[in-house]
Amino acid sequence: MAEANTRRRARGGGGAARRAERTAVRIETAKYIERNIPNFEILNEEALEIIEYNAETVLEEIGVNFVDNPAALERWRDAGADVNGERVRIPRGLARELIKTAPSQFTQHARNPEKNVEIGGRNLVLAPVYGPPFVRDAEGGRRYATMEDFNKFVKLAYMSKWLHHSGGTVCEPTDIPVNKRHLDMLKAHMTLSDKPFMGSVTDPSRAQDSVEMCEILFGKEFVQENTVMTSLTNINSPMTFDDVMMGSLEVYARNNQACIISPFIVGGAMAPVSVAGTLTQVLAEVLAGVAYSQIIRPGAPAIFGAMVTSIDMNSGAPTFGTPEASHITYGAGQLARRLNLPYRSAGSFCGSKLPDAQAAYETANSLNMGLMSGVNFMLHSCGWLEGGLVADFEKFVMDADQLGVLHGLAKGVSYDENAQAMDAIREVGPGGHYLGCAHTQANFKESFWKSDLLDYKPFETWEEEGARDTRTLASARVEHLLANYQQPQLDPDKTAALEAYIAEKKASMPDAFT
Amino acid sequence: MAEANTRRRARGGGGAARRAERTAVRIETAKYIERNIPNFEILNEEALEIIEYNAETVLEEIGVNFVDNPAALERWRDAGADVNGERVRIPRGLARELIKTAPSQFTQHARNPEKNVEIGGRNLVLAPVYGPPFVRDAEGGRRYATMEDFNKFVKLAYMSKWLHHSGGTVCEPTDIPVNKRHLDMLKAHMTLSDKPFMGSVTDPSRAQDSVEMCEILFGKEFVQENTVMTSLTNINSPMTFDDVMMGSLEVYARNNQACIISPFIVGGAMAPVSVAGTLTQVLAEVLAGVAYSQIIRPGAPAIFGAMVTSIDMNSGAPTFGTPEASHITYGAGQLARRLNLPYRSAGSFCGSKLPDAQAAYETANSLNMGLMSGVNFMLHSCGWLEGGLVADFEKFVMDADQLGVLHGLAKGVSYDENAQAMDAIREVGPGGHYLGCAHTQANFKESFWKSDLLDYKPFETWEEEGARDTRTLASARVEHLLANYQQPQLDPDKTAALEAYIAEKKASMPDAFT
Repeated sequence: MAEANTRRRARGGGGAARRAERTAVRIETAKYIERNIPNFEILNEEALEIIEYNAETVLEEIGVNFVDNPAALERWRDAGADVNGERVRIPRGLARELIKTAPSQFTQHARNPEKNVEIGGRNLVLAPVYGPPFVRDAEGGRRYATMEDFNKFVKLAYMSKWLHHSGGTVCEPTDIPVNKRHLDMLKAHMTLSDKPFMGSVTDPSRAQDSVEMCEILFGKEFVQENTVMTSLTNINSPMTFDDVMMGSLEVYARNNQACIISPFIVGGAMAPVSVAGTLTQVLAEVLAGVAYSQIIRPGAPAIFGAMVTSIDMNSGAPTFGTPEASHITYGAGQLARRLNLPYRSAGSFCGSKLPDAQAAYETANSLNMGLMSGVNFMLHSCGWLEGGLVADFEKFVMDADQLGVLHGLAKGVSYDENAQAMDAIREVGPGGHYLGCAHTQANFKESFWKSDLLDYKPFETWEEEGARDTRTLASARVEHLLANYQQPQLDPDKTAALEAYIAEKKASMPDAFT
Repeated sequence: MAEANTRRRARGGGGAARRAERTAVRIETAKYIERNIPNFEILNEEALEIIEYNAETVLEEIGVNFVDNPAALERWRDAGADVNGERVRIPRGLARELIKTAPSQFTQHARNPEKNVEIGGRNLVLAPVYGPPFVRDAEGGRRYATMEDFNKFVKLAYMSKWLHHSGGTVCEPTDIPVNKRHLDMLKAHMTLSDKPFMGSVTDPSRAQDSVEMCEILFGKEFVQENTVMTSLTNINSPMTFDDVMMGSLEVYARNNQACIISPFIVGGAMAPVSVAGTLTQVLAEVLAGVAYSQIIRPGAPAIFGAMVTSIDMNSGAPTFGTPEASHITYGAGQLARRLNLPYRSAGSFCGSKLPDAQAAYETANSLNMGLMSGVNFMLHSCGWLEGGLVADFEKFVMDADQLGVLHGLAKGVSYDENAQAMDAIREVGPGGHYLGCAHTQANFKESFWKSDLLDYKPFETWEEEGARDTRTLASARVEHLLANYQQPQLDPDKTAALEAYIAEKKASMPDAFT
């Protein structure tokens, strides 16, 4: 059995190490998941071939729009596409040929090399929620997110064993001007955590700032030769590539940084109401987007993204954890593997307004499907609430605990002599019990996933302790983790250089709030 | 796409039909699930062969105990086993040979033939929770279950679209003497519902009563020629077959009724702490149990059962929705299919004391695994709480709603011309939207699973309506379903005959409460 491969956090100086020993909380980060189980394949060969054929028909006949981006149109024309106004029609086979230079797997470096992640192959890297303008916790209710909230989430992600990645816009710090907040967010990821992180995509200039801050953190040469950021490039489905997202993609690809090319689909609204139709459009969009990244720089890492929800046709609200979203996620995984591209999808998706049973059903459905569909990079893997409008503190630690279940599932089943346990069965025999037998004693510590949150106590004990529900337990855990947070060490010169860079940038432009 | 195959409840007389039309609640029962998706196969061929070999070694070398059951020992001796005291050692290959007469699929008849279920093959039949001595609801809290609670659950199961089966001991009616409650429970299933149900296993005489009541309901000849009951025969793991369970099995098998042969495993306590070891023991136990049913009556329906939980090694409490339980459930499904036996496992398992997020995570993990592992009969598919000690009213309808997700997932992905939606993609084009297009209008009603419970409303509406969590919504749904319950018609002569039978039985023995 590939045992849960956990590593202590990097040792700092002797003082830090001794302080770490004294604390009650062991700060551990699990290794990214290396699947030892099959992927779930829902589409047969015929269905896959039809969808692939149709996607090429979409690119060739209908084409995609590259909006307000004359340079992109010129590049496409040079690459052999038929460009008419902003419409780019891509001859059958061209996009597929162009994407061949994209790597099937790549390393995203963290400033702590022990926390580097391999994105692609059979791996699964878990990152927290991305994008909510609101936060919620049991005590403070729902409110606009601030930088203080952002910092707390970065600390929680750092303290969460099953999170491999610090993510990007964990929530929108709405108290910081919109044209400057990327600087503070990046600083938080760089200084409060040592896990890998994401760059800004809200403007090409902010993507450029992200690259420059990474050059301070990692060194200029290192950044050009290695991938140190992942970035989320959404496609405006159907088939529209806007100048802001593409401008950011151009910056990242040019600098050898990873782009997730991700159609954002609410089925029935931005894509056909059917699964096969949605998959066709998603594939066409991803082919065009990844091909464009390879036109910018052949070999730049690109990820096949699919952010998929279904829709409640009565209200128009997006719905989560539904069977249709699962079908699309499974199918898109197969399409991504056939293109040899890393795959991003799934997450702690839910539509619920509270971290209640609805939220948990929807989230568990999504997380399980994410594991089984072969996702390589799972953004939003914890903390998502209310259709992504809210980053919830309690749900963050609740979901992060469930990510341990995915690690356990992915280990697969060992059948070596120890696992076969024939001696134990002989020792115990009919009518006995295994609690005390030698095999149990030797193996139980490694045998079972253990929640750090959920309640397994007898009813009477649970009642005496206040009959706490999951959210109440999670509130306590949030508090506990933040109280025990210890900042990972960083060269003070680098911190100073980052601060100087940010100060200069902030002074160079007036505040903007829209 | 195999559309959700739903059927209106059986039409009664014209008056009943008209009354049914007038009610706000349409009483629908979905057809049992016919999977159009692959099973998830976690074990490779080598692992399967090793486990199968080891299971035969267990049977041959170690054997199983048939306790307080001299007739069983005699039968085993006649069948070729090596019997020593109560220990039955079964030569390699004998059990496998004996079980060949067990059917790979069978029909369980309901008194309403439209609600017959096919157990086996690629099908999945869903039945409610079984066995809890306590019930809970938001208003009344946790309390001992009564016959009134039992009747309510039978009504809720009847009203739940995604439940195909009325189950058995949905809760223990503790206000009825233990030696008589099976009569009232069976009467409830027979008269308050028209879905298929389970017989009593708490004593061979009660199994016999179950058969006789079915003879009244279905006719004596019909019962001998058809399967009208499923029954739950637990094995006392490790490898112990007690006289009560086996006595009941003997009654059912002799009368051609279905037995689930089900090791009840808390991993690390009743089976080895490893997955492969547990699967070995489960397979040995099921082989012995099913073989015994075929010794009683070749051809009697038997189901490969595996009721599996893991254990919290700190407290000894069983844990649910864990990766290890999933591994065992997936593996046991593969073993069952290789024996051509229908498979029973999974359910709405959770350890939580409340229908909160913990309960929902654990349950969703279990339900998803049940679908993917190829389960044919899922007992406990809704309403289970607190490790099975409690049947929870709110969780019953919450879980029952999620069973719709399983129906949707199992449909698989269509890729016919309509599903390919190329005309829609052409019609909408880059930058458009699909909400109003012809393909969406023609297909949206059938395209998405729709919850009858969960909240998809905008935040403001939800807040105005009282910011209700899932449990609060579920309380209202319980009330609504019970208020709209309509009893399915039954020939008054049969009702009278059942009542007379029960009265006579009850009068024939003193009350027993243990």
